[in-house]
This record gives sequence, structure tokens and C-alpha cells, in this order.
Amino acid sequence: MDFSSKLLENAVYEMSQLPGIGKRTALRLVLHLLKQPAERTTNLSDALQKLRNTVKFCSSCHNISDVETCEICANPKRDETTVCVVEDIRDVMAIENTGQYKGLYHVLGGKISPMEGVGPQDLTIVSLVDKAKKGVIKELIFALSSTMEGDTTNFYIYKQLEGFDISTSTIARGIGVGDELEYADEITLGRSIMNRIPFEGSLKMN
Amino acid sequence: MDFSSKLLENAVYEMSQLPGIGKRTALRLVLHLLKQPAERTTNLSDALQKLRNTVKFCSSCHNISDVETCEICANPKRDETTVCVVEDIRDVMAIENTGQYKGLYHVLGGKISPMEGVGPQDLTIVSLVDKAKKGVIKELIFALSSTMEGDTTNFYIYKQLEGFDISTSTIARGIGVGDELEYADEITLGRSIMNRIPFEGSLKMN
Ligand SMILES: [Zn+2]
Ligand SMILES: [Zn+2]
Repeated sequence: MDFSSKLLENAVYEMSQLPGIGKRTALRLVLHLLKQPAERTTNLSDALQKLRNTVKFCSSCHNISDVETCEICANPKRDETTVCVVEDIRDVMAIENTGQYKGLYHVLGGKISPMEGVGPQDLTIVSLVDKAKKGVIKELIFALSSTMEGDTTNFYIYKQLEGFDISTSTIARGIGVGDELEYADEITLGRSIMNRIPFEGSLKMN
Repeated sequence: MDFSSKLLENAVYEMSQLPGIGKRTALRLVLHLLKQPAERTTNLSDALQKLRNTVKFCSSCHNISDVETCEICANPKRDETTVCVVEDIRDVMAIENTGQYKGLYHVLGGKISPMEGVGPQDLTIVSLVDKAKKGVIKELIFALSSTMEGDTTNFYIYKQLEGFDISTSTIARGIGVGDELEYADEITLGRSIMNRIPFEGSLKMN
């Protein structure tokens, strides 16, 4: 692409660094901003910068939060003996949306993936084990996507928790094998949590 | 969507104001930025702001340019007697990309569309007529998209230029080079037959 302006080229380049945004789409988005009042661009830039520079994560569950302890963890009506282990905050949003689940969460921040250079130390697993040591958690629900990486992560955590008096389960596979959690419809996802099965049982199924 | 953070909600909202970006996609893009070094977000925000606040348009052809007169208009090797009328700067980029065209451009900034409240005064038509008055332009090539709005705009400009010694043409509509005939839509195929060119002429083009 040959740009008539360095400023334009630069804006398109930065926009096209976002995942799934090619050069053509980036150009369309940038030209759209040029046609809108300058305020729109300022609002977008400010919102992104403010979030990126002041983002906080709940000290307990690692969900994104504007305060030290997130609303879910701070809610006395939630069942703190049940913890649902998820990959990222989109999964928390998806499960919360079902209105079915009343326990707490633990956001890992990814899955163990040797291919992508993500090891256990890159996730919030130590924090989860520390929480388990306190003896409050009675059940851990694995809700990672059912990929090889998801299974590896589940199993790694499962081994770390050996010796603790914690039952483990995985959400029922009403969700298509290999599908991302966040794209599941509410009813399927809700049932999937209600019909969770013991983790040991899920191992036998493979 | 229920957000655990106002800052996150705001960033997703602003991102989802871009055309073709829904809330889910916006969330994915924003979370991606959170996983990247803060520098990425700063670079994106800065590039957008800098472009939006200091964007200039060529005083002659209205193409986006960092200087008063764009590279194309300032190039003495370009044929200033031929002007190609286009909707927006993406069309300039597309035509430049062919390497076939050596004339200048005139960027209208849109098409006349009563439905969308775009009148002739919202486009750079007065500037085009002023340029025509100087007597340098000998041929005007309409390269707007062949929609009702495009045709209306072409005709409006055509009427404005009555009395000037300027020949007008539109780019040939036909079957894309390499495209299968059977997949072309009827209108395109019909035009392509009506606008057939002498075989000897088509040989010279290759
Ligand atoms: Zn929390
Ligand atoms: Zn120019």
C-alpha cells in the first residue's frame, strides 16, 4: 500500500497490529475516524490509555477490577467454597451472564502452551494453590476450553492440588469440543456448569 | 454485557463505535492490548490522535497529504490535463496501485446521497469547477462506484461543467480480468458486452 501521508500510514500500521485487523480494514477504520468529529478519536485514545495505564486486577481472583477486591469476590452472598477456574475475563463475563453460578472464580490468564512458550509460572497457578492452602475451597470447577492446552492446564493444577481436601470437576461438555467458551449460548453454558462432572471421571472419558 | 471494570467498559464502548466492530470484537481487541506492553497502546493512541489533529488535505486534489500540495499534484511528470474524479482516498490508492494512470485526481469526499443527507455542498465540487475554470483540464474521468448515488454525482458534475471545453469519460465497467464469465452479475455482463472494444485495441493494452 502506498500512502500519501506518513501520519496516515503510521495510524494504519498501528491499527493493523490489532488481531484480525488487516491493512485494508485498518485503513477503513482510520478514515472513518477522520470523518467523525475529533472528539471521537480523543475519546477512543483516552479510554484505551486510561485502561492500559491504570488497569487493576482483583488480588483474589485476578479478574479485571477498578478496586482491590472485585465485586464478585466482595459479595458475601457468593459461595466462597466453590471456585471456577477460567482462562480469561471473557469467560467470567460469559458465565456471569448465565445467572446460574453463585461461586467465585479464578482467572488463570491463559493456558499452559509449550508451543507458545506459556508455562505454569506465566499463569496465576501459585496464587490458586495458595488460596487452596487456606482450606476454604471445597470444590474447584475447571472451565477451560477443551483443547489439548486446556486439558494440560487442568491436569497440571489437579496434580498441584493432590493432598488437599478439594473435589474437582469439569463443566459438562454440552459445549462443542474445541469451541471457545465465550461463544457458547447462555443455556448451553448454564447447563454445562450445573451438570459439571468430577475431574477424575472426565479423565476416563478420553 | 456486564463489565467488572468501568475503565474496561468504557474502552470497549469506544472501540465498538468503529464501523463493523461489535462489542465482542471490541472486547477481544481491548484485552489484546492489555496483554501487550503498554507501549503498544500508547503508540496506537498517539498515531490516531496525531493524524486526527494535524491531518491536512492537498489544496488542489483533496487527497490526504502531510504537505500543502500532495506528491502526485506536485510531480511535474504527471499529466495535469487529465483529472480522475474519485470518492475517497482509498480509490486514489487503488488506482495508483495499478501503475497505469499518469494524470491527476480530484477527491470528492463522498457521493451525493439525499438519503444520507449528503448534498453537492458537502463534497469538493466547487473546488473542481474552480479548477476547470482555469482551462488546464482537458479530460475528466469519472471513477465513482456505479450506484445510483455515483451516477447522480457524475451527472451533477457533468452539468456543472457544461460550456467548458472538457471531455468527460467514465472508467470501463466489465468482467474482471481473469474472472469467469458465468459468475458475473447480469448488469456487469450486459455493460461489458455493450461497451466492447475493438479487438486490435484490446491487444495493444497487454
Ligand atoms: Zn475477585
Ligand atoms: Zn494533490
